[in-house]
This record gives sequence, structure tokens and C-alpha cells, in this order.
Amino acid sequence: MEHILEDVRRDILPGLTHWQSPRFFAFFPMNASSAGLAGEMLSVGLNVVPFVWAASPAAAELESVVVDWMARLFGLPRRFLFYSGGGGVLQGSTCEAVVCTLAAARDRALGRLGGHEAIARLVVYASDQTHATFQKGARLVGIPPSNFRVIRTSAASGYGLTAEAVRAAVDHDVGLGLVPLYLCATVGTTGLGAVDHVRELGEEARRHGMWVHLDAAYAGSAAICPDFQDYLDGAELADSVSMNPHKWFLTNMDCCCLWVARPRDLTSALSTDPEYLKNVGADDDGAGKAPAAIDYKDWQISMTRRFRAIKLWVILRRYGAAGMRAHIRRHVAAAKWFEQRVAADERFEVVVPRRFSLVCFRLAPRSGRDDDATNHVNRDLLAAVNASGRAFMTHFVVDGKFVIRLAVGGASTELQHVMEVWDLLQGKAAEVLQHYVKPNGL
Amino acid sequence: MEHILEDVRRDILPGLTHWQSPRFFAFFPMNASSAGLAGEMLSVGLNVVPFVWAASPAAAELESVVVDWMARLFGLPRRFLFYSGGGGVLQGSTCEAVVCTLAAARDRALGRLGGHEAIARLVVYASDQTHATFQKGARLVGIPPSNFRVIRTSAASGYGLTAEAVRAAVDHDVGLGLVPLYLCATVGTTGLGAVDHVRELGEEARRHGMWVHLDAAYAGSAAICPDFQDYLDGAELADSVSMNPHKWFLTNMDCCCLWVARPRDLTSALSTDPEYLKNVGADDDGAGKAPAAIDYKDWQISMTRRFRAIKLWVILRRYGAAGMRAHIRRHVAAAKWFEQRVAADERFEVVVPRRFSLVCFRLAPRSGRDDDATNHVNRDLLAAVNASGRAFMTHFVVDGKFVIRLAVGGASTELQHVMEVWDLLQGKAAEVLQHYVKPNGL
Repeated sequence: MEHILEDVRRDILPGLTHWQSPRFFAFFPMNASSAGLAGEMLSVGLNVVPFVWAASPAAAELESVVVDWMARLFGLPRRFLFYSGGGGVLQGSTCEAVVCTLAAARDRALGRLGGHEAIARLVVYASDQTHATFQKGARLVGIPPSNFRVIRTSAASGYGLTAEAVRAAVDHDVGLGLVPLYLCATVGTTGLGAVDHVRELGEEARRHGMWVHLDAAYAGSAAICPDFQDYLDGAELADSVSMNPHKWFLTNMDCCCLWVARPRDLTSALSTDPEYLKNVGADDDGAGKAPAAIDYKDWQISMTRRFRAIKLWVILRRYGAAGMRAHIRRHVAAAKWFEQRVAADERFEVVVPRRFSLVCFRLAPRSGRDDDATNHVNRDLLAAVNASGRAFMTHFVVDGKFVIRLAVGGASTELQHVMEVWDLLQGKAAEVLQHYVKPNGL
Repeated sequence: MEHILEDVRRDILPGLTHWQSPRFFAFFPMNASSAGLAGEMLSVGLNVVPFVWAASPAAAELESVVVDWMARLFGLPRRFLFYSGGGGVLQGSTCEAVVCTLAAARDRALGRLGGHEAIARLVVYASDQTHATFQKGARLVGIPPSNFRVIRTSAASGYGLTAEAVRAAVDHDVGLGLVPLYLCATVGTTGLGAVDHVRELGEEARRHGMWVHLDAAYAGSAAICPDFQDYLDGAELADSVSMNPHKWFLTNMDCCCLWVARPRDLTSALSTDPEYLKNVGADDDGAGKAPAAIDYKDWQISMTRRFRAIKLWVILRRYGAAGMRAHIRRHVAAAKWFEQRVAADERFEVVVPRRFSLVCFRLAPRSGRDDDATNHVNRDLLAAVNASGRAFMTHFVVDGKFVIRLAVGGASTELQHVMEVWDLLQGKAAEVLQHYVKPNGL
């Protein structure tokens, strides 16, 4: 093992992108913690497979306890809790959750429409800010790619999807004889951290009998703080909600919480019951089986599954709600500090108002209006920062603007690191601006 | 953390089914190892996300190296290796691999058929021994449930699927105007460890332009021993092959190898390319990107993914091919020992010949023919064994026969444990048979 670890150090580590560096501000950071590692070691060491209840009763039961805890901590409506008839599951990613809920919505609709041929008439709605996984998921479950509507958003709504825009698209489709199936509302989009108007969208979707999924993959973690729960207002109009503890909740990969209001919709689309999986330990009449026994294989794509519940349980026990709130607030405060510096520096501008811990900014156009030169200089600035090896950030493009994203979220990222990256940016900005002054007078 | 671990000991461990016990013979054991744990700790501790190449180059590259190693170790045809134009990916489960390959096959067929409406005409073929995940997967990707053909197998072919049976089903469907899409061939079925005739099925499927998937989830691991590679004969006729190191290859969960002959088929169905995932580090013209850079997000359902390659790499480095062969042979020898004892005891019978490390047996019918009493007594025998807490086994039903499965596969399972379970079975058999003699003269 010593030789192997030496090879890891020499041959593998230098080629990795260091996601756990406090200077990692790219994508959304996937933060980790010692409690998360301990939880994973328990999961990996025990190596049990809670796919049917009998295959590890305590694992299945702990999972239903933990997802209820999470729902309560985030202030989700009661209908998503087990004790109110809803329920949750821990999956590996939002992508899986999306495929499962799309399949549930599809089968519910096909049942109503009375035939599988109707699949070609089903339409899924998202915004141009929605994560690409929804388009991929819709295609995966057999929705015609031409029936995936990407609705434009604009700066006026902070790049949030509006009910008005959805209504126009839906009315058009219904006029063509198509069937509105599924609408995705996002709280904290990947590109800009934008927030869709959940209540407004939920009301609109209900008018058409659409399934509403609320994707809070990144920003959902912020709802551990009561002051961020307003963003989830209207969640009771959703059919399903998902968020990823592995993004911003100190949870090592992988872990995605999916809650549904009517578990039956999900299990109808996903259940299997072959002989070799019949719950042993249960008598023929099910007498040996707990009344609320959950076979989680019917709540997800895969039969096989990891004991993720113990990881999330260890994390919740170790840090508690107060510890988690402090963690979230520390990152939000650092992002806020950075946003203020950007706003106060006339060379820069904040492109969309920050809501959580993501700041989207750029070097402002010298000419007062967008042009290719502005995009070029920002692209060069980002490349210069990343090439320094002292920070890693990624970009986004909105309304033709090349935007630099500073996503604060590393477990070990402190205000000090954000201050250092601001210094770095200022220095690199001076360099690239100097370079650009000459050729085109920017 | 001490309090939390104490709670794990007191409240959680007693409610788990102990998959890592050497006396766990149920389902297929999911074995684990110290190298697997070390590999997972590296993966979980580094917590990198190799979803696009730039997001962790060494992780993406190690993955392509490791899947090529595995293909070579198992004697897979060259077409599944990267250097021959094929390639592999590490996913979480066979279920995911099935969904991905079904989607690839579906989109290839729809492209040929020229319209999405044709989805209602696509047909998927499997046997009554094929894992339930194929039916679930077919439904997930939008194949009409009524277009999933479950072809009967029989004792005559050792419960393997025959080309003759497939031909009859396909001819019938083609006559109805349906389109044969996908055929699953299994080496080592879950219920009985049966083996489909891969070459024969591959030839038949090719005649109809069907995608052939070879599922070797459990038994694939045995192919590390050259003497077991014959079961994969004809694999060059398959479009994709999968096997699960997390079942029998000392790999802690989760890990499924999927190889495809034409990666383009897979990525065409699964790729996404949003702005926020554009490979940073690569120049606009891709000059900074390695020529063979792989964005593994386009090879699977999820965008997010774990660094599974380092786990499998540590395991391969630590145990080597020779160590793995010894591990497989130890289990096969123990299962063979058990099979011989069962065959030599006139009260028992082996229901299907053992091929790997799974023995399917039962108390033989006293009357010389199958009856309900025989099933009852076997059900009671299994319940008595499991209730003893000294072993855990599961059952299967084939041709109306209730069959007990002894699946040898725990990392710490030695011949001695199999000997003990044979003693246990003999004792419990005497008890249940005595009980049954009275009421119905069995």
C-alpha cells in the first residue's frame, strides 16, 4: 500500500483539479468535511445494500428519518414528509432525481391519456437558465427532443422564469394539440444563481395539470437559515423537490435529497418485484415486515444503492443546525464582501445581483456598451487568474456577455481566501487592461 | 464523534443485515476489501468530480486506463478497448448501464426510422431469467411496457436463452410491423447463475440490427481466470458489456464497468454542452485539451460523478491478477464442495448445475414429483436457517420450484464457513422434515 500511495502522490495528485482547495471557486464547489468522511467510511466499511427493506432494515429506516429531518430543517411543506403521506430518498445526483420524476410524471400522464403513443405529445418546460440535466433527462425518458421548451429569461426578472412566459409557451403548445407535462423551477441556477418564481410557476403549472419539480441543488442548502427559506415559498405547489447536500452541505459525494408529495407516483413508474427480491424475513402475508417498510429500489433508477443515510446522519449529528447555519453564513458573508468590492471598483461590474454565495461579475465595457473586446478582455482575465494557479474560477455567458463566476463554497474557504482572490483579480485586471489599451483603445 | 459512533453501535448496527459477514450467502454478496476501503477513502477525501476532463484530468485519464486494464484482464474483445476505438466507463450500477445503452440503441434506431413516433414500435428482448432491471430500464427510456418480451427458458438449456426462442419472438414481432431494438444476454443470471449462449444470440440479433448488451454483472469477475473466459465467447458480437466489480471483485460499492464498441452511440444519446461546462483550460480551438480527452458526463446518466477509478486502480495494484484469481477460485472451490455434499445427500438435490459460486438446491420431493408440500418444506428450511442467525440465504422460484440459493462471495468467506452452513442445513433439514412427516406423510 505504501508503494501505491507513493504513486498516487507522484503520478495522480499533480494531475487533479483540487476541488478541496480553499481557492477553488469554479462550477459549484462540492464541499466535504471530516464528518462526511467518517460517514462515508461507515457506509463503505459496512458496505450494506439497502435496496429492499429486509436487505438492511436500519439503513432503510434511517434514510426515511434523515430525509424527514432535512425537509424540516429546510422548512419544506409538510406534504413532502413521510408522516404526512409524502416522503424522500437519497440518490446520487439531481440528474437521477430528474429522470425519476420525469418518468413518474410521464407515466401518470400516459395513464390519463390512455395510450403509450401519447408520449410524442408530451412537453417539458424549462428556462434558458435551467440545468442541462433536465433536457438530458427528458430525452432519456423518451420525450421527443423537439418537445423540450427552453423559455427565455431576461435581466428584468433577474433571469428567473416567469409564469407569463410559461403561459405563452403552454398556450401555444396546447393550441397545437400537445400536452404540457412537466415544469422545472430552479432556486439558484448554475450559471447565475438566479431564482425562479416558485409560487407563480406552481400556480400556472397546476392550471395545466403539469408536474412541477423544484430544483434547489445548490441553493437549497441555504434554506437551513430561516432567512433564506423565503426563496422556497410556493414549494407546496410542487410535486417534487431536490437539493444536493454534496454541493454546499459539507457532505462528501454523492448525496442528493429527493422529496415527492405522492410516493405512489414515483414507485408506480419505478417498481419491480422479481422473485429473488421478495422480502425475506417477511412472512407471506407480510406480517414480518414493518408496516411502513420501504423498498428504496422502487424510489430510484438503480436497484443497488449505497448507505448514504448514515453519512448524512453523521453530518447532521456532528454539526447540527447551528453549525450548518454558521457554515452557510460564512460563505454568504464572504461572497457579499467580494460583491461589494467589485461594485466599488469602477473597472468592474456585478452582472446579476448576488443572492447566495455566487458572484457573477466582469470587467465593465469601456465603451459603455457590450462588445467583443469586453468579452475578450474578460476571457483573458479569467485565463490569467486560472493560469496563476492561485485560484480556479469558471465562466458563464448570458445575453452575449462573458461573465466570470466566483462560487464560494469550499469547506475550508474563509474570507481571507476571497480577499486574496480579489487582490489577484485586481493585479491581473491591470495587466490585461494594459494589454488591451494598445490594439483597440479599449 | 465518540457519542455518534456509540449511537451507531447501539442503535444502528443491530438493525443492519450484515453483508460483510462471512456467513452472508444471500442475493449476490457485495464483497469489500481493505484496498477497496483505502481506494474509497482516497476518492471520498479528494472529493473531485471528473465530469468533464478539465474538472480533474488525471481522474478522467485514470478511468480510461483502468477500464482498458479490466477489459484486457477479462479477455474482452479488442473492440471494447479505447485504443481500438471502443471504450469504457465506471458507473454506479448495471441499472444505469442498462438505461444508457437502451437510450443509445433507441436513438440510433429512431435516427434510422426517421421519427420519434417510431418509439412505440421498438421491442426489447430478454429471458425470464434476465435481471428485472432491464424491464425497468426499457420502461424508463420510453419503450412501451407492452413491447418488452420475456422469453421463456427451460431446464433443457440450463435456463439459458436460446437463439431459436429469440428468432420465434422476433419473427412474430416483425410480422406485426414492430422493430427489434435490443437484446440482453446474461452470463450468470441472478436467480440461478444461468448462462445465455452469447455467440448464438449475437448472431441472431445481428440479423435484425439489434443492439446486444452482455450483462455479466456477477459472473464477469470470474473471467479474471482464463478458464472462465469461455463463457464470454461471442462477446465481439455485442455492442456493450457490463460487469460489477462491486459484486465479486473485492470492490466496495459502488462500481460497474460498462464497455461499448462505439462510444459515439452512447455520447450521441447522452451528451450535453452548456456554457458553464465548457472545458476551461482548453483554448477555444481545443489546443489545451488532450487529444483524447473524455468528458465522462456524456457516458452516463448523471453529470456529477465520483472518482471511482482510483478505487479500482488501488484494488488492481494491491491484489493483482494473481491475487484476484486466487480469490475467485477459493469461492468457486467452496461452492463446488457444497454442491458435491448436496448431490451426495439423498434428501437434497441440486436444481441447476453450478457454474460459478452460486449453488441452487432444495430438499427433493419425497413423492418423486413437484408438489406444494416440497415448496413448503423448503420455505420452512430457509426460514429456519435464517432465523438461526448463523447464516443468511435467499430463495428463487423456477418452474414452480422453491429453490434455496447459496451464493458464496463474501470477502471473508472461507471453505470453513460453507462447511458450517452445510452442518446447519442438515440439522435444520432434519427438524423441518420431521415436522412435515406427520401432517402429510411427506
